[in-house]
Amino acid sequence: MSSNHSLDVLIQALRRLPGVGVKSASRMAFHLLQHDREGAQVLAHALQEAVGSVQHCTRCHTFTEAQVCHTCLDPERDASRLCVVETPADQSALERTGAFHGLYFVLMGRLSPLDGIGPKEIGLHKLMQRATDGVVQEVILATNFNAEGEATAHVLSEALKSRGLHVTRLARGVPVGSELEYVDLGTIAHALADRR
Amino acid sequence: MSSNHSLDVLIQALRRLPGVGVKSASRMAFHLLQHDREGAQVLAHALQEAVGSVQHCTRCHTFTEAQVCHTCLDPERDASRLCVVETPADQSALERTGAFHGLYFVLMGRLSPLDGIGPKEIGLHKLMQRATDGVVQEVILATNFNAEGEATAHVLSEALKSRGLHVTRLARGVPVGSELEYVDLGTIAHALADRR
Repeated sequence: MSSNHSLDVLIQALRRLPGVGVKSASRMAFHLLQHDREGAQVLAHALQEAVGSVQHCTRCHTFTEAQVCHTCLDPERDASRLCVVETPADQSALERTGAFHGLYFVLMGRLSPLDGIGPKEIGLHKLMQRATDGVVQEVILATNFNAEGEATAHVLSEALKSRGLHVTRLARGVPVGSELEYVDLGTIAHALADRR
Repeated sequence: MSSNHSLDVLIQALRRLPGVGVKSASRMAFHLLQHDREGAQVLAHALQEAVGSVQHCTRCHTFTEAQVCHTCLDPERDASRLCVVETPADQSALERTGAFHGLYFVLMGRLSPLDGIGPKEIGLHKLMQRATDGVVQEVILATNFNAEGEATAHVLSEALKSRGLHVTRLARGVPVGSELEYVDLGTIAHALADRR
């Protein structure tokens, strides 16, 4: 409708968010304009601020506003262990466990040849430089346990091992709190093979 | 994390969107910053434009950038029929059917006393003024067929009838294309009572 150009533009812009279709986008636009105009302005401002100031850490590639991120600068961290994750969200999940005190390298994606994401896009060259700094002793691959994450781990593992690095992978097994009856067979088979 | 203030602010701002929790908000922020910074700027701009220019039509209350919306200004429309809907999305669903040629009144919500949405918030007073302009002959209530929509229709119906207006409600019945076996019993009972 010609009298509603800004609203249509807003709905189209909201559809660029992942997982948002035309119905969700309409509902979001309606909600913001009818009930939370302040929220719309806060969001507009936050988007501009983030685009303007968030960049990648030169050491680990995660999002940061500084040259080098908080974690990489922390002298308490064990620089001999480098954990490779796909995204900052995965990094923060590991951080919340409190069980890892080494440093990270964030791929910002995973290998997905069909989507045009190859070794260059996930920064394989930078990871090799980072891992061969002479301080790193062990590289822990913590990519996801789905097809693309496993393929990524395999490629990284081959490349890192060829440089003589010690490479490990997060253990596969039965999730804490689960009942065997409901765990998939592949997981049980892995848990059995890796029993300790 | 202190080095990631803008990112945290962006995630919090995205959570103000309806249906977006902390995981979705993180995924959205990651996607925009990693893969679609242009989209983030387009969205920021669209939000500001919409907040600045979208207002309510003085006749029907829907969103518009003009004083009076496109539909209300259309001289081809049958001004003797006024259809009351909850939201602009409901209005556009009715428009897409091509089966209604009258005018609309958009409540921009529905009665929900527990959320503090009473007759004033849905513009009951304005609806009464609009419906008693001497031109409107029939008011069609097209609020949703859930508890709150039905309660809203009931309240509006009582108020409008007390002014001597002819009030109708969208028919309840079996949806087109459905099989009776899978239709809920309340719907079948209504379809039976309203058989024709």
